[in-house]
Amino acid sequence: MPYITLPEGIPGIRGPLSIRPDIAKPLSEFTETLMRGENSLTRGERELIATVVSSANDCFFCENAHGGVAQHYLQCDMAFIDGVKADFTSADISDKLKSLLSIALSVQKGGKHVTEDQISKAKELGATDREIHDTVLIAAAFCMFNRYVDGLDTWAPRDRSFYIDRAKHAAELGYRIEPR
Amino acid sequence: MPYITLPEGIPGIRGPLSIRPDIAKPLSEFTETLMRGENSLTRGERELIATVVSSANDCFFCENAHGGVAQHYLQCDMAFIDGVKADFTSADISDKLKSLLSIALSVQKGGKHVTEDQISKAKELGATDREIHDTVLIAAAFCMFNRYVDGLDTWAPRDRSFYIDRAKHAAELGYRIEPR
Repeated sequence: MPYITLPEGIPGIRGPLSIRPDIAKPLSEFTETLMRGENSLTRGERELIATVVSSANDCFFCENAHGGVAQHYLQCDMAFIDGVKADFTSADISDKLKSLLSIALSVQKGGKHVTEDQISKAKELGATDREIHDTVLIAAAFCMFNRYVDGLDTWAPRDRSFYIDRAKHAAELGYRIEPR
Repeated sequence: MPYITLPEGIPGIRGPLSIRPDIAKPLSEFTETLMRGENSLTRGERELIATVVSSANDCFFCENAHGGVAQHYLQCDMAFIDGVKADFTSADISDKLKSLLSIALSVQKGGKHVTEDQISKAKELGATDREIHDTVLIAAAFCMFNRYVDGLDTWAPRDRSFYIDRAKHAAELGYRIEPR
């Protein structure tokens, strides 16, 4: 049972956002821009960053919802996503993306955990200032979303196939929530 | 030196936001609504929640910028704000606000740290569902802002009087950033 009264059957972050359309509009617009706007990081790469951070924060809803969408964009299976979550250093992804995931996981611990060495490494591997900016902000944003979802003890389907089945539709819909 | 190239002399979060107006607009609109919109929690109480969370995250810019604004709204001195940061349980604030600060500090650790007991206590002391919702979201949001500010190693004036001097003006301006 969520800690506050929320409409039944709306999973994860959508529950609390449904009772605050004034908050939902700018927050969803922010998410849409950050996660789906024009970017040299692909949507799949950004969803992978979100998934890895959500996994580190042990947020079941976010890691599965975004893991599902990452899998859809990257045209891979969930075993690949699970592999990246378990150990991104040995995953079949670019060295640049590995350097960005390393930064994201430092941000997850706290902003001051990011080191100059991590940043230098990412730049050496071709990461632009904007890619580093977006990685830090995506990681930071999911530290918010994860806490919002779990801090209110929101409901989420436990069957992982729910998230995989809805990933294509979720990717088509995007994140923007307009007031009814 | 910030980890990425940012315009000089723009403190804290305003630096990275200045290079991404597409992000700044919805994110600042979200902040404006959450921190200054119509609410049974006063602006001072919301700024105090933000300050205590930022202090727990050791984010110098945020704890001073929001501490300054909290002090302005609450018409107190900085010693009072520092006292709340050091130990809110013995501060001269309402028991309801103490119960909300306790929830906020659990959210700071991670969403799953919030307990049913904390929620029951807050409700017994008169906290509404919306006040609990907003407390969780403010705490979660500052876990994002703090990480964004420190994860990019942004510049911030070290003299605390800077934040106190600008608090009145900052409170008048609000958080909304419109694209130039």
